[in-house]
Amino acid sequence: MRSPVLLRHAYKLINHGPTTLISSAAGGKSNVMAAAWVMALDYDPARLVAVIEEDSYTRELIDRSGDFVVNVPTAAMVDKVYALGRVSGRDVDKFRAYGIATMPSTKVVAPLIEGCVAWLECRRIASPDTEAKYDLFLADVLAAWADDALYRDGEWRFADASTRTVHHMNKGAFLLIGDRLDAKPIEPLK
Amino acid sequence: MRSPVLLRHAYKLINHGPTTLISSAAGGKSNVMAAAWVMALDYDPARLVAVIEEDSYTRELIDRSGDFVVNVPTAAMVDKVYALGRVSGRDVDKFRAYGIATMPSTKVVAPLIEGCVAWLECRRIASPDTEAKYDLFLADVLAAWADDALYRDGEWRFADASTRTVHHMNKGAFLLIGDRLDAKPIEPLK
Repeated sequence: MRSPVLLRHAYKLINHGPTTLISSAAGGKSNVMAAAWVMALDYDPARLVAVIEEDSYTRELIDRSGDFVVNVPTAAMVDKVYALGRVSGRDVDKFRAYGIATMPSTKVVAPLIEGCVAWLECRRIASPDTEAKYDLFLADVLAAWADDALYRDGEWRFADASTRTVHHMNKGAFLLIGDRLDAKPIEPLK
Repeated sequence: MRSPVLLRHAYKLINHGPTTLISSAAGGKSNVMAAAWVMALDYDPARLVAVIEEDSYTRELIDRSGDFVVNVPTAAMVDKVYALGRVSGRDVDKFRAYGIATMPSTKVVAPLIEGCVAWLECRRIASPDTEAKYDLFLADVLAAWADDALYRDGEWRFADASTRTVHHMNKGAFLLIGDRLDAKPIEPLK
């Protein structure tokens, strides 16, 4: 079930570096693109950064709406994730073409993508210089959600391969996230 | 063996979101810290961003030298990675205290960390506003290296768990990177 995540814990949803889907909407149009270059920026206030290319349709919609959603997809969606990163929403309605369903968000115009396991509703922090020079968008996270069967108490609890996050490597090659590894405390040598 | 990676492919070393070690040096002092908030920014020219907290010793050294190295550690190093993120280089010589060996870099002052599987030598792009407001550093990648037993032709080829990258989740809990998953091409519905 989708449950709210404390804003100061929102970074934990993407701290392990999953490839994401960025959804956007403005003026009755909406779009979704694949994005590996998304990273937490702060936890209090909750913020993140994302690279959104200048000529992309997503960029056009975000320029108009000022918001977007970072969705975290799973291995079950990997073919769609790859496809969504290869076509432009200017040329095709990606929701219809790839059978992507959406749910309403709570704080922004952009929709949440069904089938994902975490969602971060983001509002652009106007940063004209970094946007123009580097395609880098800074954003406040206004609401965060996770599938509580998979994420609880600040930790991912992945089991089946199909619900694990995917981490883009090269062209259509991804790496699945693996198992938990707990670091043991070590004392510094004097 | 450590082999050079084409600069326009440097982003592929961190595209899957591993937790990194950032090494720095200035005026005969050096330091190393753990950093999950590191992300590719561009491939040509090769650039990345990293969050480096204002009061950290790493920040002080980078302010003086203008450069740093992003090192990609493995599961074999996870206890050290966690420890390196919990103490300040102002209080302890982390290299000595945790038995961290270094190798010379080629384009920057900061050293390369032994035992890692990829290295990105970075020079800060002066961005006083984003540094001051968000602790966000932009950098050009001047040289990149990878262990060619594990990374070849733009792709990670992990085998043993001990050589896989680690992805920080919460406190001492990491996720190991898992196996390769190839997306299948799908045709859009008309």
